[in-house]
Amino acid sequence: MPKAPMPDAAMALLREPNPAVIAVTMPSGHPMSVATWYLVDDDGTVLVNMDAGRARLRWMEQHPHVSLTAMKEDEWYTHVSVRGPVVRWEYDEQRALADIDRLSRHYSGDAFRNRAAKRVSAWFEITHWHGWELD
Amino acid sequence: MPKAPMPDAAMALLREPNPAVIAVTMPSGHPMSVATWYLVDDDGTVLVNMDAGRARLRWMEQHPHVSLTAMKEDEWYTHVSVRGPVVRWEYDEQRALADIDRLSRHYSGDAFRNRAAKRVSAWFEITHWHGWELD
Repeated sequence: MPKAPMPDAAMALLREPNPAVIAVTMPSGHPMSVATWYLVDDDGTVLVNMDAGRARLRWMEQHPHVSLTAMKEDEWYTHVSVRGPVVRWEYDEQRALADIDRLSRHYSGDAFRNRAAKRVSAWFEITHWHGWELD
Repeated sequence: MPKAPMPDAAMALLREPNPAVIAVTMPSGHPMSVATWYLVDDDGTVLVNMDAGRARLRWMEQHPHVSLTAMKEDEWYTHVSVRGPVVRWEYDEQRALADIDRLSRHYSGDAFRNRAAKRVSAWFEITHWHGWELD
């Protein structure tokens, strides 16, 4: 698995609103995966955002390293995986809704529907990446 | 995350040739994810198959628990995640090609192209599952 920085083609794919899956490590040491929204932020870290009640959030706090695989829509054999440590958290409710809104707009064009949601943002740094059929 | 058995709708989705991502735990304890083929075998375990040279194979041998998220093609908000222990390995070359052929046919209709490939099969048991928008 090559280390960052990623080549332009891989980063260009990653910046699209792709179907994606995030993986975390549970306290048992076992992996857990789930579909997720994400986006590459201006500083090159990757933003994900969770409901404050999610078990996944607690697991990420305990083991702050994640992996994310993004697949090109309608062409999933083209995919890119990135992983690294969580380098920033944002628990503030207002700010967190700003982040889920950015994610929601990135994927759907619209703001997040549930305005009463309590959300938490996490950003992870890309230290390693792996891609397939990126040409 | 509910325990198995899965409801029929979730299992029906899982049996389709869906885009999917598998997550494993690396020796560092960090998660690693990558796109994968898979299929639900007759006994309800989930078959995945790797090139014998893959680092992921060694990591799975060291920590034989995996998680897999399958997303409905063209409708990825419908997804199902399953996880559990690897309960069977198959290193035999002939047999492993039979397995990658089954996977290849499941996804593409054709046998696997690389007849010289050295492949390893693993089956994991579904002990926990999680689904979204399965109605």
